[in-house]
Amino acid sequence: MPLVTQQMSWQDISAVMQKHRDETYAAVEPAIPEPPKDLPLNVTGVPKQLLSEDVVSITESPTQTLIESLATGKLTSTAVTKAFLQRAGLAGKLVNCITELLPDRALARAQYLDAYLAEHKKPLGPLHGLPISVKEMVGMKGLDLNAGFVAWVGRLAPDDATILKLLWHAGCVFHARTTEPQSLMHLETSNNLYGVTLNPHNTRLTSGGSSGGEGALLGLRGSCLGIGTDIGGSIRNPAANNGLFGLRPTSMRLPMAGLSATMMGAEHIIPVIGPLSTSLAGVKTFMKAIIDQQPWLYEPSLVPLPWKDSTKATLLRTGPNGRRKLRIGVLADDGVVKPHPPILRGIATLVAALAQNNPADIEIVEFPPYKHAEAWRILSALYFADGAAEEKAAIAASGEPVRPLTEWILEATGARELSVAELWKATEARDGYKAAYGRHWNSVNTALPGPLDSDEEGVDVGAVQREEVLDGMVDVILTPTGPGCAPPLGCAKYWGYTSQWNLLDYPCLIFPTGLCAGAEEDGVEEGYTPRNERDRFNYELYKPETYTDAPISLQLVGRRWEEEKVIEALEFMLETAGMKSSV
Amino acid sequence: MPLVTQQMSWQDISAVMQKHRDETYAAVEPAIPEPPKDLPLNVTGVPKQLLSEDVVSITESPTQTLIESLATGKLTSTAVTKAFLQRAGLAGKLVNCITELLPDRALARAQYLDAYLAEHKKPLGPLHGLPISVKEMVGMKGLDLNAGFVAWVGRLAPDDATILKLLWHAGCVFHARTTEPQSLMHLETSNNLYGVTLNPHNTRLTSGGSSGGEGALLGLRGSCLGIGTDIGGSIRNPAANNGLFGLRPTSMRLPMAGLSATMMGAEHIIPVIGPLSTSLAGVKTFMKAIIDQQPWLYEPSLVPLPWKDSTKATLLRTGPNGRRKLRIGVLADDGVVKPHPPILRGIATLVAALAQNNPADIEIVEFPPYKHAEAWRILSALYFADGAAEEKAAIAASGEPVRPLTEWILEATGARELSVAELWKATEARDGYKAAYGRHWNSVNTALPGPLDSDEEGVDVGAVQREEVLDGMVDVILTPTGPGCAPPLGCAKYWGYTSQWNLLDYPCLIFPTGLCAGAEEDGVEEGYTPRNERDRFNYELYKPETYTDAPISLQLVGRRWEEEKVIEALEFMLETAGMKSSV
Repeated sequence: MPLVTQQMSWQDISAVMQKHRDETYAAVEPAIPEPPKDLPLNVTGVPKQLLSEDVVSITESPTQTLIESLATGKLTSTAVTKAFLQRAGLAGKLVNCITELLPDRALARAQYLDAYLAEHKKPLGPLHGLPISVKEMVGMKGLDLNAGFVAWVGRLAPDDATILKLLWHAGCVFHARTTEPQSLMHLETSNNLYGVTLNPHNTRLTSGGSSGGEGALLGLRGSCLGIGTDIGGSIRNPAANNGLFGLRPTSMRLPMAGLSATMMGAEHIIPVIGPLSTSLAGVKTFMKAIIDQQPWLYEPSLVPLPWKDSTKATLLRTGPNGRRKLRIGVLADDGVVKPHPPILRGIATLVAALAQNNPADIEIVEFPPYKHAEAWRILSALYFADGAAEEKAAIAASGEPVRPLTEWILEATGARELSVAELWKATEARDGYKAAYGRHWNSVNTALPGPLDSDEEGVDVGAVQREEVLDGMVDVILTPTGPGCAPPLGCAKYWGYTSQWNLLDYPCLIFPTGLCAGAEEDGVEEGYTPRNERDRFNYELYKPETYTDAPISLQLVGRRWEEEKVIEALEFMLETAGMKSSV
Repeated sequence: MPLVTQQMSWQDISAVMQKHRDETYAAVEPAIPEPPKDLPLNVTGVPKQLLSEDVVSITESPTQTLIESLATGKLTSTAVTKAFLQRAGLAGKLVNCITELLPDRALARAQYLDAYLAEHKKPLGPLHGLPISVKEMVGMKGLDLNAGFVAWVGRLAPDDATILKLLWHAGCVFHARTTEPQSLMHLETSNNLYGVTLNPHNTRLTSGGSSGGEGALLGLRGSCLGIGTDIGGSIRNPAANNGLFGLRPTSMRLPMAGLSATMMGAEHIIPVIGPLSTSLAGVKTFMKAIIDQQPWLYEPSLVPLPWKDSTKATLLRTGPNGRRKLRIGVLADDGVVKPHPPILRGIATLVAALAQNNPADIEIVEFPPYKHAEAWRILSALYFADGAAEEKAAIAASGEPVRPLTEWILEATGARELSVAELWKATEARDGYKAAYGRHWNSVNTALPGPLDSDEEGVDVGAVQREEVLDGMVDVILTPTGPGCAPPLGCAKYWGYTSQWNLLDYPCLIFPTGLCAGAEEDGVEEGYTPRNERDRFNYELYKPETYTDAPISLQLVGRRWEEEKVIEALEFMLETAGMKSSV
């Protein structure tokens, strides 16, 4: 690792880290091509022009195809790893998403796996030979673990994070580490070590955050499967901004040991780890590969829920009232900040296709929001319950500047230090809201008569006992991933569409539906009167030409620990709507 | 409810509450007999002398027999409820375990259920007609909810606790509410409203706590199934002291809404709710009746783990190495405080019977303790993280005296107010210990060679992947329930044998093995050199004559969320050892 000392200025430390990154680029063979000076706003087409046909072919294969080719030996892990190393390096040069490549480790591992397959005639595990990229804050033994703070550079991970051990045991290769923002609490990615990560679809827009390095890297196909973390949207926002699939699992499903961040030990809002992928199958394979290894035996905080291998038949089971439909609740607008036209069009288009193509098996109902502004008040008071003392100390220690979005989030949340008694009150309020939202979900029910109250009382326990009422309950919520597509740099200031589900700890799956198409399809809503200041900021942000080529992504939300159901539902929805499950 | 005002002295409030309790006794028909003045130390035989044959026959039936008789109409709920009301009232007069009886509500409910069965020819649910007793702190709509604090008298529950709603839906009757100690943080039961609850097996001993009212009531068979709560031993300790079955489930399995206590909102050490019963089947039926109703639909904090209906065949499944044995780890001594001779004899006797009667299906290994003193340091720092401000305020508000064991636990834990940053550090230490204990459990493994290290490193992840290693893992730990049987009043000052498993959040099942038999079988260990002050206190407490007739109970511990496995294991063990599953 590069040598830094406490005496160095933050600028010098950054320079050392960038030099180290560039040296890892230089160690890749064949050499990573240098991008031209004049680049279009959309750089996603650049790799195709600069890389060999073989590299393009490998890196643009669907994840599942790669896994199959690696398992059968049709492709060697060495070839696949070399291809992704090259493309990841190019992605790093194009949009600044890489903290370091790992060519030596990755190729040694790939050679081991190739030899293993040759000897044993079978793959080592379900991810045999597949390169996976990893957000920097996920510890890799002996490598830097700075979590985006200059002062933390030089902290080396004493061991691999548990999730990496399990993925390793499943046969994968780790080829790249990716950028994250200062404090990890931005829905963009910028820090004082590497600067700003850009969106490859439109480099005036943000790649999102905090797993924005992953998002941008996968958006350029420098990886087909990556690892992010999420406490307010940090997996989902970059997945959405870059047109990817991404899953925020329920807490206590995937192992968290070995990560570096502030606020370790805080359990009022629990961060989670999860996959981003260029295909839905990548998300599913990742989850299954880990959970099949019973991670709860190594981290007792995890719930021992085996992965449910099933088909959509489990959603469309026969109930007491005949064939069970997939029931989708549509929450298009959270009532606080109205989404931009492309997002609303994305939802409307999908809903229309589903309704038209399979009305027998899919039922669509409106899912009214339940006090989302209140949810943000509860959540934001809990984020920095030590008054952000740890973040401020970590920044001050090196003298690095406070990034604008760090300053903004501390202001937006208040970041007030709570006493333990206040903290307990706040967690009680959180749990009260969660219970009320659960009753609200119960009440959006096609088996109950008439429009239902969603007040504090909700449906009584007795009512929900009845099998027909369970049968009429909404399975998944279809909702935006944010109040718009990837915003211009520095403008990601409304977290509600993602953070809502962190408060509730519901599993959320992000998927792409297309790209922004300009003013003709998605004109400004003229004469709109904003509801509040946040709504005004968002309304004024929207100009069709700002968002050229920005991916329009949506979010599917399930009840806690229903990851399998959410994935199954999306598989069925994409198939029904004639949409692809791989980008 | 009785009328109290803020102006009344704590003594006057207590007098009002006791008068109310006595009025509920007086409302029971036929009249509850008055116990004689001269009572033996062991009062468990008294009800048989004072109650009618029918009442004795009903109240001494195994729980499962009662459930079956009620479901078929062989017994009416009215008859069963009347019998338990009478016996519960007598128990209250004998050992002071009742805060109020509920004759009006209970009999109205029983009549409804009898009419239901007559009309529908089937029971309302799996607990049809069965009277259940409830610890006072579990809210019942419109009834007092004081949690043992004088100042909280007059707080009426706005609704039934969720768990009561679910039990109600399963068809039960609630007939009695039971005592608890001031602060709920004693392993005994005394408060300034009702005084001290005694152990019916030996009234010089404590009934345990904090669910000591339940323990004493069930010990006298004034109930066959009751509800307690547990944050340091409060279900298990009274179950053990009174020779009952009792289950502390893993957190997030049973619903907690509607309970009253200090420290609501604290989540570093999570209290749980669970059953005490005169039979193992009672424990199992209780759990299944609730979980089959999908309580996670009403409380989103709960984990959606369906109840696993299975037989011991699932424990004795065929593994890669042939028939799977039940593997029992024996942790007889936690290394901090050595258990009294009756406890060690109880374990040795059971282990010998198991080893002798079915060596083919049961394997017994030593389970070394892993830093249990350290566990107490971590746990005790987390209990009163607000510096016990809430307890002190609740006591001061009425001017009631601080009970000696309240004072003692605040001293024993330090009860220091933490900052949020300190709290986070403490929860990190907790999680580190939990993970280390999990690795320790993995390492006590009959499939691994030689004696194993139980150091911080434990077994590596790769090792545990192997199917044969999983197969060799210990299923359950057999361990004491405390450092002795029920101690003399005021002496319950070592929590380690129960609180250890609260820190780890493992499910624990208590079961009786017999009664203390005196000096001949369980003499004092002469010449023993105590390890520390706590060990000395406990050693000096033991004189065989002190513990005449005290139940010798043991504890079976599983991994998180393995309630079904622990119950199955105990069923199999009791059957193998020729012991009864009902007292």
